[in-house]
Amino acid sequence: MAISLVGLDADDTLWHNETIFRLTHERFNALLADFADAGTVETRLTEIERRNLAVYGYGAKGFTLSMLETALEISDRQASTAVIAEILAAGREMMAHPIDPLPGVREALEVLAAESRLVLITKGDLFHQEQKLAASGLGSLFHGVEVVSEKTADTYVRAFARHGGSAETALMAGNSVRSDILPALAAGAHAALIPYPLVWAHEAADPPADHPRYRELTSLADLPGWIEELRTSPR
Amino acid sequence: MAISLVGLDADDTLWHNETIFRLTHERFNALLADFADAGTVETRLTEIERRNLAVYGYGAKGFTLSMLETALEISDRQASTAVIAEILAAGREMMAHPIDPLPGVREALEVLAAESRLVLITKGDLFHQEQKLAASGLGSLFHGVEVVSEKTADTYVRAFARHGGSAETALMAGNSVRSDILPALAAGAHAALIPYPLVWAHEAADPPADHPRYRELTSLADLPGWIEELRTSPR
Repeated sequence: MAISLVGLDADDTLWHNETIFRLTHERFNALLADFADAGTVETRLTEIERRNLAVYGYGAKGFTLSMLETALEISDRQASTAVIAEILAAGREMMAHPIDPLPGVREALEVLAAESRLVLITKGDLFHQEQKLAASGLGSLFHGVEVVSEKTADTYVRAFARHGGSAETALMAGNSVRSDILPALAAGAHAALIPYPLVWAHEAADPPADHPRYRELTSLADLPGWIEELRTSPR
Repeated sequence: MAISLVGLDADDTLWHNETIFRLTHERFNALLADFADAGTVETRLTEIERRNLAVYGYGAKGFTLSMLETALEISDRQASTAVIAEILAAGREMMAHPIDPLPGVREALEVLAAESRLVLITKGDLFHQEQKLAASGLGSLFHGVEVVSEKTADTYVRAFARHGGSAETALMAGNSVRSDILPALAAGAHAALIPYPLVWAHEAADPPADHPRYRELTSLADLPGWIEELRTSPR
């Protein structure tokens, strides 16, 4: 069967993101070292971040606000305004960080774009995600961009339809089993997991190893091969 | 001519928003009263907010981060962590504020939805805008939601197309001449300005009073009447 539309996750699929978050975490832990050990800071930040998802949603701005809240709480409001200013700066730098495509990504997308419509399907902050796509230099390879607040089966059905595709002939590729793989399979699409060394705690889940429309790839560079395989397979 | 698609701005067109921002501004000014008069605080906040638009985009989260930056700067980092905590709380409350449709909005949308596809077309934070539409109870009247990072003629052409419409038979209604009216007219659509008592400094612009496809209405309740007029007009 022919895949006519390829959905691609952005962060940690096309470019580094979690790495930048981790660096910011380390910087954050160091700033609060006078008040608590890194483990305690991490745990509290994760709790506050999770609690704030309902108000802030995903993305670097909400994360920055959660860091500030955590700093006030862990320091029992004793953190200096210098620390607050440092956290604001860390957030800004995270948002302005240069975006370099992961190795092989550009080449793979060029091959894929020749055969299928490419649609960026990502959670997070609309403005920041569009900024990152522009900064990556990959924008022209995409037929469209869908920034969504959650990734459900219905999200994928609508996103594929918006770009003239349907789940039956669509494939979603990303690094999150929970957000990119399971809902895309539930929608009826194919799904390729491209693991990233770091997984955000909120995204952890088991891969559906035996699902007929699922495959784990070591790199996006392997995706054109799988799509070719599907095209030439009997059914 | 028949209007088959009606685009509607969200904040200050369907529900109060600027009012909430202004209340937060007042609370912010009071918090910094020890360091500067309200006028100085306002001016500096507006400057910092404008500068940060390129990094944060539109929305309450970016506004909260700009308030924090302004507080540190105006107080020369002397603001207490209690003030920082208050600003974080003010931001959260702004984001969790109950959303009540403006008078006559629900009734007008019900009339419009019977004749045309309604599409919410708004700038700002995707997650927060979806939250607000859900909280408003108006969601079921809309055929779709388009949260965009900027409102240009091209934005409108694409948004209309995505929902099976075209500029020729589309009408955009909103409270911002700069974002809702001028680009929608440039796209070839009709445009209805529904002024809101408060206009955000970034959005100020002169209305195209004599444009043939433009009209200023006193309330959304007058929109069905204009659309009916257009339908029955010779051309």
